[in-house]
Amino acid sequence: MQQCYGSIIRRQQHLIRCLSTKMQSFSMSGLEVDAVSVLRSLAPALDPNKHKGQAGKIAVLGGCREYTGAPYFTAISALKIGADLSHVICTKDAAPVIKSYSPELIVHPLLEESYNVRDEDKQSISTRVLAEVDKWLERFDCLVIGPGLGRDPFLLDCVSEIMKHARRSNVPMVIDGDGLFLVTNCLELVSGYPLAVLTPNINEYKRLVQKVLNCDVNDQDGPQQLLSLANSIGGVTILRKGHSDYISDGKEVKSVSIYGSPRRCGGQGDILSGSVAVFLAWARQLASKGEHNTNPAMLGCIAGSALMRKAASVAFEDKKRSTLTTDIIECLGRSLEDICPVH
Amino acid sequence: MQQCYGSIIRRQQHLIRCLSTKMQSFSMSGLEVDAVSVLRSLAPALDPNKHKGQAGKIAVLGGCREYTGAPYFTAISALKIGADLSHVICTKDAAPVIKSYSPELIVHPLLEESYNVRDEDKQSISTRVLAEVDKWLERFDCLVIGPGLGRDPFLLDCVSEIMKHARRSNVPMVIDGDGLFLVTNCLELVSGYPLAVLTPNINEYKRLVQKVLNCDVNDQDGPQQLLSLANSIGGVTILRKGHSDYISDGKEVKSVSIYGSPRRCGGQGDILSGSVAVFLAWARQLASKGEHNTNPAMLGCIAGSALMRKAASVAFEDKKRSTLTTDIIECLGRSLEDICPVH
Repeated sequence: MQQCYGSIIRRQQHLIRCLSTKMQSFSMSGLEVDAVSVLRSLAPALDPNKHKGQAGKIAVLGGCREYTGAPYFTAISALKIGADLSHVICTKDAAPVIKSYSPELIVHPLLEESYNVRDEDKQSISTRVLAEVDKWLERFDCLVIGPGLGRDPFLLDCVSEIMKHARRSNVPMVIDGDGLFLVTNCLELVSGYPLAVLTPNINEYKRLVQKVLNCDVNDQDGPQQLLSLANSIGGVTILRKGHSDYISDGKEVKSVSIYGSPRRCGGQGDILSGSVAVFLAWARQLASKGEHNTNPAMLGCIAGSALMRKAASVAFEDKKRSTLTTDIIECLGRSLEDICPVH
Repeated sequence: MQQCYGSIIRRQQHLIRCLSTKMQSFSMSGLEVDAVSVLRSLAPALDPNKHKGQAGKIAVLGGCREYTGAPYFTAISALKIGADLSHVICTKDAAPVIKSYSPELIVHPLLEESYNVRDEDKQSISTRVLAEVDKWLERFDCLVIGPGLGRDPFLLDCVSEIMKHARRSNVPMVIDGDGLFLVTNCLELVSGYPLAVLTPNINEYKRLVQKVLNCDVNDQDGPQQLLSLANSIGGVTILRKGHSDYISDGKEVKSVSIYGSPRRCGGQGDILSGSVAVFLAWARQLASKGEHNTNPAMLGCIAGSALMRKAASVAFEDKKRSTLTTDIIECLGRSLEDICPVH
């Protein structure tokens, strides 16, 4: 009799597990977007009549005495995905190193850190930096702010001013790394700007939720909380990185779960920010021609996430535990060609 | 009856379309040159009795604090096409970075930008720079002026003086990028010099036409306007880059349309200027032996364009959307071997 009860209970438990898995996959499939189709719809036709610059000009604001790899990863990824020109705006000390990684990048040694600046010179240097960046700003189709930026207060003040100018000129901004540290402490820099994309990892997301929603991350109802968060920052788009990537602009939530790799080497977020920047620029081009009416920031995140996850999976297939960020970058071209062949 | 008229009109329209297409292809085929044969006729025999330098010594004048990739691309391309020695004359800040890209190049840290020079020192520094460059000038078979040169006024003044000396010494000059900015504002630097080649892209060409012909670019009659432009600058050779490349020395116009790639990543123009420089140097060697009586600047442009377009198409075949300038440079050797095999 006891054995019989046991078997009934086990069967019931099995049914509950099945149902909850089904529920989960139902809610998943509701959020999961056909990222591959989105990516295909954004990649521009390769027309021999086009000239240099028309496939996108991206700039990365980052790179300081301490960090030089991150802005390189972002900028070279943008080129390998198909942008025509990729700039890095960094500190004077970081520039020769970043330049030496690749002759393909245009590296501007413009920013300064406190250790190199006397208090009485700060105002004039800040004005000069801003004037220099302003010369270029409107030529950029997207800015990525944060890879290897560091946290020097004087540097971050300059970057805040650049962000205000970029916003006035309607230049889209993808914000990652130390850019998220800046923005979390000064939300008005992006609040209400629909061309801002935040790409937090688990810790950056936690700080953002605590600051904005004044609570802890709620994984039971993750998508709803992400929606509230994006909505609370006035409709910026947030790409919450994880096992699945979740994306919301405060109006809808989508997830991208295809591909991916279990390797978590540093630098993958830098590829993602470059990838999102290129697809966001392309989505805006299409939107300006009336060929897409979805929020270009959402589309850019979806396509950028899918490509990054695909390249990571291709690289992992080959390099396994040894996979590095450079290996993933080498797989961007092949992954793109797999998803949307040129011919 | 109306239907009958309609069908006659449609037939007439069809005939007009056929005729205009034929006319177009006739005028195209009239301009299109057998660039592959020109290239083959210029590539020197590889004779084991020759010594270092006889296959060409090229120098690139460019590279400043902001730009270092462009002069590297030009100089390394010249070597990979077959020049024996490739020099870069750049600013002191740019030199270590350019050196770090490749040990193959000879990099001279000679030039200075305003930010590094006091007003009272400008005259003496300018004199010193010129004396240093003069030591080398007559050894060069071709100068490329402009890749990554920047627009610093003091630097451009020095470069103007170098150009005057080069002209006096009959050194051929290929002028691209910021060199074209300099020349467009100071046409007498090249006017009437048959060994000057200008290689403008769409925007540089527009500025040149506006300055020299005082009108807008006329695409209806592009070849005729190019002829007038080259003629108005006293018979310099102009290579107008585009979907097809058009080349004129003010006496004739030729086009090169074979090969090519739809990718427009920055840096391809730098490969082209290096390629034109090498073939121009070779064409001059042949002319001096009486083995060619066509303008060597025209021949250099035709062969240089064909090789660049071939390498770009080979690289694109492999790398597709992800093609970068470095990938194209890697294909120069194979492309050359395809067109004119060593044996």
